[in-house]
Amino acid sequence: MKLATLDNGTRDGALIVVRRDGEVFADATDIVPTLQGALDRWEEVAGQLRARSAALEAGELPGVPLDVRRLLAPLPRAYEWVDGSAYVNHVVLVRKARGAEPPETLLTEPLVYQGGSSRFLAPTEPIPLTHREHGLDFEAELAVVLADTPIGVDPEDAPQYIRLFGLVNDLTLRNLIPGELRKGFGFFTSKPATAMAPFLVTPDELEGSLLDGRVHLDMLVHHNGRRVGHANAGPEMHFSFHDLLAHITKTRAFTAGTILGSGTVSNEDPSKGYSCIAELRMREIIGGGEAVTPYMSVGDTIHIEMKNGDGESLFGAINQKVVQG
Amino acid sequence: MKLATLDNGTRDGALIVVRRDGEVFADATDIVPTLQGALDRWEEVAGQLRARSAALEAGELPGVPLDVRRLLAPLPRAYEWVDGSAYVNHVVLVRKARGAEPPETLLTEPLVYQGGSSRFLAPTEPIPLTHREHGLDFEAELAVVLADTPIGVDPEDAPQYIRLFGLVNDLTLRNLIPGELRKGFGFFTSKPATAMAPFLVTPDELEGSLLDGRVHLDMLVHHNGRRVGHANAGPEMHFSFHDLLAHITKTRAFTAGTILGSGTVSNEDPSKGYSCIAELRMREIIGGGEAVTPYMSVGDTIHIEMKNGDGESLFGAINQKVVQG
Repeated sequence: MKLATLDNGTRDGALIVVRRDGEVFADATDIVPTLQGALDRWEEVAGQLRARSAALEAGELPGVPLDVRRLLAPLPRAYEWVDGSAYVNHVVLVRKARGAEPPETLLTEPLVYQGGSSRFLAPTEPIPLTHREHGLDFEAELAVVLADTPIGVDPEDAPQYIRLFGLVNDLTLRNLIPGELRKGFGFFTSKPATAMAPFLVTPDELEGSLLDGRVHLDMLVHHNGRRVGHANAGPEMHFSFHDLLAHITKTRAFTAGTILGSGTVSNEDPSKGYSCIAELRMREIIGGGEAVTPYMSVGDTIHIEMKNGDGESLFGAINQKVVQG
Repeated sequence: MKLATLDNGTRDGALIVVRRDGEVFADATDIVPTLQGALDRWEEVAGQLRARSAALEAGELPGVPLDVRRLLAPLPRAYEWVDGSAYVNHVVLVRKARGAEPPETLLTEPLVYQGGSSRFLAPTEPIPLTHREHGLDFEAELAVVLADTPIGVDPEDAPQYIRLFGLVNDLTLRNLIPGELRKGFGFFTSKPATAMAPFLVTPDELEGSLLDGRVHLDMLVHHNGRRVGHANAGPEMHFSFHDLLAHITKTRAFTAGTILGSGTVSNEDPSKGYSCIAELRMREIIGGGEAVTPYMSVGDTIHIEMKNGDGESLFGAINQKVVQG
């Protein structure tokens, strides 16, 4: 099933179930008011939510036409946002771009950072940019939403803790990163609020595309209306979501509703394009020139989605415009 | 007023108002069920909560005897946990301890890291330790809980965004830090769940001790029953809570209930002791020897509190024991 959050004027919005084609929805607040509430009581409410989804799919419920501009992020605020960097090609390119070496443990231990989770941008919410010289970049990523997850999960036990899949645009202020990393405490001001795609879906919606904790579909990225990326999110995800989950639970437990990201989807083959501008800039340098493609400016647009084998947009589209902040 | 959260079997517990002496409490769930709920609707409910607090203080309400072992962390899960490192003496000592230089911007730009917020330990909850060689350390800190806070707050406007003050024990696995910092993404597995003191208090409870975003009172730390620290949290806090708040809002907004920590309270004068073991170990090395004091083991206890001029425990005590994890 597909779940989303309608803006009803409250902080956490109203839970809705969305038909597979994304065209219509059914209210679900009589079952549980919010998506966080559903995740808190999943065993109790998932069956009823699935029944509503099935009724919508079967046409027993007509559904209400969906306007994605009325949606909030599925989780407008979450208790934790943990972002991996599981595509090795991205790590190597971005570190080259800032003149840094990849870490020694690149292939043996996942990179993860703790992100801000108190405010996620809606799928069509403008991106405020206060200073162009901050170097605003998009990052197209997959993400999973976790169940209550204990300390010490083995990769093979990870699937039972993954409730939902979705997409995020992990916005980054590239030019704030070097100074911040020199301080040694990780990213902070270099990571403004992250945007989420309209729908979160249960793993069964991914059908045969979900293999070993990896989603074998293309990440479709359009920047200013032009397709710039269609990297396959599957084969080059060096650490699967199962590996990432095992890593983050080494010393901590996580509450239901924790969001875990894949890191920027990236393929070695340059013909697959890019899911963030930093990679293109590095390739321009490797190609013998200078980084000529600028980061985002006021007026830029970014569109991110993923389609299944039938051409259906699985998570709906992130579709944002940069505005003066 | 003093607020706390009683364990009622739910994820977020039940909001209570606590008498200034910490001996008795009154239920507040008829006003608003949880502390997060109160922070979400502060303007609407603060007056009623204050009235209940006043009735308790005046003896108009008898109150129920308080057993701190029945308390959860005031916010058992929060939308964001941002921890500063505002005591320069701590930064210098801890970096020396791991052979690293303090950052160039030590005195001009606050250090902050994004911590995990989906699970805070209760004030008397045992600390699980899975591997002694991880080097478990306590860190006694002050913290504030924020109102909805926009991007771009100036330090002089910061007080209006600070709702509550409290104490945290920001537990750290010291021996996991060097490897994690080499990866460049900040702390993650080196920071297990943080514990909170029983009570959060409104700024007026601090009376004359609160000056310019600093709390001029001693952080009382007992390790294994012996007093090891009584550093004054005021004068040597290089960046005040106002400075920290201005820094974190440079590129992001924060939801009500975000917790912002001071970093380990630390004084240059060694006779004031220490608020984390790492500092003592560094002093042992500087004294010409080896670091002989071990990090925490199963069975160790840690007790952290802060008293006002009348000798009253302002936030109640963090009182934890290390157990096999």
